[in-house]
Amino acid sequence: MKTVTSTRAMQRSAEELRRAGKRIALVPTMGYLHEGHQSLIRAARARADVVIVSVFVNPLQFGPGEDYSTYPRDMARDEKLAASAGADIVFAPPPDEMYRKGHRASVLVEGLSDVLEGRSRPGHFRGVATVVAKLFNITKPHVAVFGQKDAQQAAIVRRLVEDLDFDLELIVAPTVREGDGLAMSSRNVYLSVDERAQAAVLSRSLRLAEERIRAGERDLEAIRTEMSALIAAEPAARIDYISIADPATLQDLTALEPGEMVLVSLAVRIGRTRLIDNTTVKA
Amino acid sequence: MKTVTSTRAMQRSAEELRRAGKRIALVPTMGYLHEGHQSLIRAARARADVVIVSVFVNPLQFGPGEDYSTYPRDMARDEKLAASAGADIVFAPPPDEMYRKGHRASVLVEGLSDVLEGRSRPGHFRGVATVVAKLFNITKPHVAVFGQKDAQQAAIVRRLVEDLDFDLELIVAPTVREGDGLAMSSRNVYLSVDERAQAAVLSRSLRLAEERIRAGERDLEAIRTEMSALIAAEPAARIDYISIADPATLQDLTALEPGEMVLVSLAVRIGRTRLIDNTTVKA
Repeated sequence: MKTVTSTRAMQRSAEELRRAGKRIALVPTMGYLHEGHQSLIRAARARADVVIVSVFVNPLQFGPGEDYSTYPRDMARDEKLAASAGADIVFAPPPDEMYRKGHRASVLVEGLSDVLEGRSRPGHFRGVATVVAKLFNITKPHVAVFGQKDAQQAAIVRRLVEDLDFDLELIVAPTVREGDGLAMSSRNVYLSVDERAQAAVLSRSLRLAEERIRAGERDLEAIRTEMSALIAAEPAARIDYISIADPATLQDLTALEPGEMVLVSLAVRIGRTRLIDNTTVKA
Repeated sequence: MKTVTSTRAMQRSAEELRRAGKRIALVPTMGYLHEGHQSLIRAARARADVVIVSVFVNPLQFGPGEDYSTYPRDMARDEKLAASAGADIVFAPPPDEMYRKGHRASVLVEGLSDVLEGRSRPGHFRGVATVVAKLFNITKPHVAVFGQKDAQQAAIVRRLVEDLDFDLELIVAPTVREGDGLAMSSRNVYLSVDERAQAAVLSRSLRLAEERIRAGERDLEAIRTEMSALIAAEPAARIDYISIADPATLQDLTALEPGEMVLVSLAVRIGRTRLIDNTTVKA
């Protein structure tokens, strides 16, 4: 496995690989890899000749006061974990290679970017869509693999690919969880031992929602109230949002049609750490 | 020469051409081709194995009350003119192929899009940048040829290519003019015989600015005043703007440094037809 840091060198390699008839898969990450990322890399490995894992903490998707500077980074460890999951190339550009002097262009996916995470993090998805478009143009993938953990990001990237005609197949791979259900996340390292135990309430509340919806509950407000009560029982937990929405438009639902797929998602602060999780369930 | 209307078919062809080692050039147009477009097609022909001319009147770049519905269209004539200038493929998608149901993504080049043409035509360059990004992804060019006639568009596309890492060479080809200096434009057909004669004042005023700047005039307001007076002498002419600006940032200059390149550009209504023109000159 090799590591590439120059955007031009990465683009030249990608072009040569395509010319040689190789199928390229891209797994975009912000690094500090865990088993969740490794599952994405393995999904990519199964679908391509060459697997590129990008490791880039994208300044454009962090707001003021967010954790850009403190976001965990460990390149040597990332290289090992990427290689062991089957990556061929780690693409890890420095920020000033990605955003050169005079940078002005950005990509916007309207309607999907200002709800849920976007409401709490203005500008976040514009940063995400912009860096994803750049990564697509630099690494020229036939397949790109994203995680369902970031459900809104996946919905936005889906529209980006469709609307701007990126010629690639988008794979959204399932969330990987710890034994107690906590979704794997690089931000889990921020949790104290006590907070770590309480953090399992996110996935417990999602399982509660799944059970209620599958059992035929149609009162969405009642489901949200039950989830809130469960989460509120953890002393370190503060709910940012709980949403029951259409998985494609991300608009909150007011009623459930039997057979319809719904996206239940939430963001909860456990102490000072903001965690997200979601599930899709058939009504 | 063949005509392709399906975006998917065009993308498949482009991918096959690239795989076969062919060098692709794209000339994006809104059709109703004239000698100006043909010069772009010839510039493309000299630089590539396969020349694709897109013909698409892009609804996204027209504002309410602008001439989207009346913009001149003549596909049979465009095919002939494209072929005679050396095009291999005319790509002419219907609007609902380019903007499918649920379209939400767009590309923004901030700072360059809200001045000059953008001030008079809000949203115009967002529409331009979005369709150009789509055309790049559909036709996969190694070279893209734009006209200097649309100087602001060229500056914006240059940033788009650089900032979103499109892997292509951008060529900006000189404006082609009628005998009296009028820049060729599909919109010239809107002019009456009398207006057509008066329309030559745009390029005359640019030549005046060139002479003054080359002669060492440093009072930009004086140059604009002289240009205005020249234009105002034509009874059908109404000035929209006259700008003396930095060619890359498009910001109006307040002073000239000797040796600096400056962009002199203007928009003038001749009767009901809005025309633009520009020149770059060394101070």
